[in-house]
Formats: sequence, C-alpha cells, structure tokens
Amino acid sequence: MGELDLIKWIRKHSNKKKPVLIGIGDDSAVIDVKDADSITVSTDTLLDGTHFNSAQSSPKQIGCKSITSSISDIAAMGCRPSFVLVSISFPAKEKIDFCKKIFKGIFETAAKYNVQLIGGDIVSGKTPLTINVTTIGIVQGRNPIKRYGARQEDVIMVTGKLGGSILSKHLKFTPRIDEGVLLNQEFKINSMIDISDGLLTDLNHILDESGLGAVIDERLIPISKDAVKLSGMTKKSPLFHALTDGEDYELIFTASKTTAKKILESPKFKIPITAIGRVKKRKGLFAIDAAGIERPVKPMGYEHMV
Amino acid sequence: MGELDLIKWIRKHSNKKKPVLIGIGDDSAVIDVKDADSITVSTDTLLDGTHFNSAQSSPKQIGCKSITSSISDIAAMGCRPSFVLVSISFPAKEKIDFCKKIFKGIFETAAKYNVQLIGGDIVSGKTPLTINVTTIGIVQGRNPIKRYGARQEDVIMVTGKLGGSILSKHLKFTPRIDEGVLLNQEFKINSMIDISDGLLTDLNHILDESGLGAVIDERLIPISKDAVKLSGMTKKSPLFHALTDGEDYELIFTASKTTAKKILESPKFKIPITAIGRVKKRKGLFAIDAAGIERPVKPMGYEHMV
Repeated sequence: MGELDLIKWIRKHSNKKKPVLIGIGDDSAVIDVKDADSITVSTDTLLDGTHFNSAQSSPKQIGCKSITSSISDIAAMGCRPSFVLVSISFPAKEKIDFCKKIFKGIFETAAKYNVQLIGGDIVSGKTPLTINVTTIGIVQGRNPIKRYGARQEDVIMVTGKLGGSILSKHLKFTPRIDEGVLLNQEFKINSMIDISDGLLTDLNHILDESGLGAVIDERLIPISKDAVKLSGMTKKSPLFHALTDGEDYELIFTASKTTAKKILESPKFKIPITAIGRVKKRKGLFAIDAAGIERPVKPMGYEHMV
Repeated sequence: MGELDLIKWIRKHSNKKKPVLIGIGDDSAVIDVKDADSITVSTDTLLDGTHFNSAQSSPKQIGCKSITSSISDIAAMGCRPSFVLVSISFPAKEKIDFCKKIFKGIFETAAKYNVQLIGGDIVSGKTPLTINVTTIGIVQGRNPIKRYGARQEDVIMVTGKLGGSILSKHLKFTPRIDEGVLLNQEFKINSMIDISDGLLTDLNHILDESGLGAVIDERLIPISKDAVKLSGMTKKSPLFHALTDGEDYELIFTASKTTAKKILESPKFKIPITAIGRVKKRKGLFAIDAAGIERPVKPMGYEHMV
C-alpha cells in the first residue's frame, strides 16, 4: 500500500455527512455554517516520546488519543466537537500499514464521539511520529465558556476523579463533552478549562486569565484509584498525584455559589462533580491541608509523559 | 526566554480583531460566523528536510513559507483565507529565540495577506522542525471551487509562469488569493487547484476527480525565467521543469470556452493567465509537442525538495 492508496482508503472510510459540503480530497474542506452563530477551533500536536510512546502504545491507541485529547479542548469550552483534520508525520522506515492502524484508532474514536474527519495531511521523512489534530465545533445558542470569566467567591468544581492518568487513563479517557455541553446549556458557568497539565497548573490558568486567586481544600480533592496505585510506586502521596498529574482531561470550572448548589444537586450528571475550593480576590493559589491549615501552593504541573 | 514567555509574546503580537471572539490563550479560538454561508478549512504540514531545509533557509523564511503554502489551498478554492492556527514542533536543542524568528516570518506574512493568527501549539523534543498550519476562510456568496467540476471541452488555464521554483520562488511566492477570488466572483470556474506537486500531477488531480482526460499544448506552457536558469544546471529542458516542478503555487483552473475568452480578455488580472489545453472525454493526459505531434504523458511530479 502506497501513500495514495492510504489516502483513498481514508476517503472511503470518512463518509461525508451534513453540514460538510466538501470533505477529504480537495484543496480544502467546506462546511455549511448557515445555522451557526460561531465556530470554535483548536489544534493540538502529539509527539512521540513526549505525549505518547510508540514503543509502549499501539498505533490504534495513539490514533485514539490524538482525537480524544484534541476534542477535549472543545468540550472545555462547553461545546460539542464536530470535525477534525488530522496531519501525521511519520518515520520513513515505517510502512504505510502503520499509518493505517493509527487511522483505525482515529476512525473508531471519531465515530464514538460523532466527529467527522474532513481533512489532513500525511508526510513521511526523518521524523518521529507526530500527530496534529485540529478540531472544530459548531456553536448555536450559548456562547463558549472562556478561561477568563472566573469571579470572586466562585465555587471551583471538577468532574471525575483525579491523578495517576499515566497508568492507563491518558490513552483511554473519555473527553467530558456531554458534561461540558450540559454545564454550558443549563447552568451559568463563569470559567472552564480541561486538565491537560495538572489540576493546579490548569486551575492557575483560569486564575491568571481572570486576574484572581483561589483557595482549594485538599480534603475535598477527588482522588482516583490510579492515583493511589501510582502512589505505591512513586512514594508520593495520592493527593500529590491528583493535584499535579497531567492528562486527566477532566473539566475544572467555576460558578457562583447559587449555581454551584444547583449543579451539585443535579441528577443529570453521570459522573461525580466535586466542589474543591473558592475563587478569591487575593491573588495566588492556597490550599487547606488535612490539618485545616492554609498555605500557599505552587501551581506545579506535570512535564508531559517521558 | 522560556516557552511561556514565547506564548505571551505571540499573544501580544496577535491582535484579536472581528470576527474573532476568542483568540490565542484559551482552550480554543472562537469565530463569529453569523454572516457566513460556509467555512473552508485546510491543513498543511511542512517538515524540515522535505518541504524546506533549515540549514539553507532562515527561520523567518520558513515561517513565511508555512503561511503562504497553507493559504494557497484556500485561494485554490477561490476563497479568501482569514485565520491560521500554527503548531510548531522544534528540536529541543534550539533556543526559544529560533521559534520567535519563525513567528516573525509568520506575523509578517499574516499581516501581508490580512490573515489572523488565532491559535496553535508549541512542542519541543526529539524532532526536526515541523510546522503545521491550519487555515480557515469565511465564505459568503459564491461557493468554493472544487477540483471535481471540470467539464468536457473546458479550457485549461494557469496563472503566472511555471518551473524552477526551487531556485527561490518556493520560499517567497505570492499565493494567488486575489486571482482565485476574482475568478470565483466574476466568472464561472468549473474546477481549480493550486500547483504544489507540479503542473501535470496537479492537473491530473482535477482530471481524476472529474473522471475526464486532457490534451495540453506544450507550446503554450508559460515558462518562467527560473525554469530556464534551472535547465542550465540540470540539463533538462525548461519545459520539463515547467511541467513537473512543484511548489509553483500558481492556480490551474478550467472553464467553458466562452468563459475562458472573457477571462483571457479581462483587464482585471495583474498577472498573466494562459490557456494551455482542453479537457477531454477520453481519459488520460496527452500533450502536443513542438512538432505538433500528440502523445500520452505521465502525470509525473515532483517528489518534494530534498
């Protein structure tokens, strides 16, 4: 199979559906946006040895992760991702079949999340495997949720449980699309971000952009089983992993106390939503520890996988 | 300068203007499309050693080329590019300043063609310099021009002069945005593509997609001075270079004989437009040579630079 055959194979597997007017195979894709208010666009590059390890993960897993991590950015705006463009640079020594396996992961994941592949580029050469995914979401009605809208005394909440993603979740997490969209449609969310670099680091992005600080209560942080498991291997606490591990792809968001109450009592969420702290006028990030003592914390994060 | 400083610097230099609602610095960019009929989206990856050579070209030139080659894909739809997202993977040994120089080329080129940088990603690691650019155009009124719309007896035309791009044009060509938009707005163009892989190869894409063939007249091919110059170095004919050299980024398009006449007589084009052949029902690509003899030709193209 040559590169042209691969592209033919990709075209065959990417059924063009509304509102896509022109899909793969032209100079550019064309999407009908007559019914849209705005579009939300994000791009994400995954590099072998940094964001995944091709010696440890299958091409299909890597293809899957390239899509989920990119669509998570659109979910973090409270919007639904609809289209992806995938560009792959792969080592010349790999056969086209290797690329095809990556695309199998891409197609499976795209179908799972109802996302259409509408374009891309394939290049081989002296390069490690690099996958760039651009994701586009169509926005109707509610505006996307920004990072910089946090307000004083907002309650800080997170979806799911945190930490230890490296053990397996980073390859097979569920982007919180349904939760993001539900939050945006039914509640007044002031700011939101997804956790790619770690809870503290990503929360700090919200605070930086909003010109505010926060106090989080370490006793409230939802700790995953994998954070506990990883703790046994690293000798760091499960809490440390929950606070700093990257690639959880859960959502961090803030809303007023009244809205937070409604969210926390809502039966509509299928995963846990946890209040972990409050936004404060005083800049900087502070944490209340197990003994109830408040201290400043560094927004330390995770320096990607390897 | 660290990576975060670079991102701050990039944000400072990318003034958010209408219709961009959210620009660089959030999980995704948001563009108002209330006035748009459709959007046209394309993505393009440039790899060091394949699409440019960082030992021979300056970072600024490379940044410039990454934008021009990507926006040319939107011009090839007869549309105006408006937004770019740029993802750069660069070797860890390079300093951030290297990246900043690339972005200087990007900003200069984006400003020249009235394109806004709205997002991207920066990754360093064990990788050659790789630049991925996604370009988005907003379409109002006229539909984008497809590759697959060529019709029997259409006149095949090209913009500009062809061949020898490797001598310098590939780093400093002008994407044919004005010409593409003018063609789309004022004439009925049946199919169009830009020349990235070579006249014969790219014309063949139009023919393949349209299920048709063509006869071109080699005596009519507009040959550039650089094709002649390169010919002196390669000992291949200037015509050979004009037919097969890649990265000319001129437009190939087809239209009915009546429309072609109007185009060729129009005073509105600032660059030469040349009729080079006709679309035929009979599949395959044929060329009439200097002696007036027709023979089949292979749609041979250019195997990227190095």
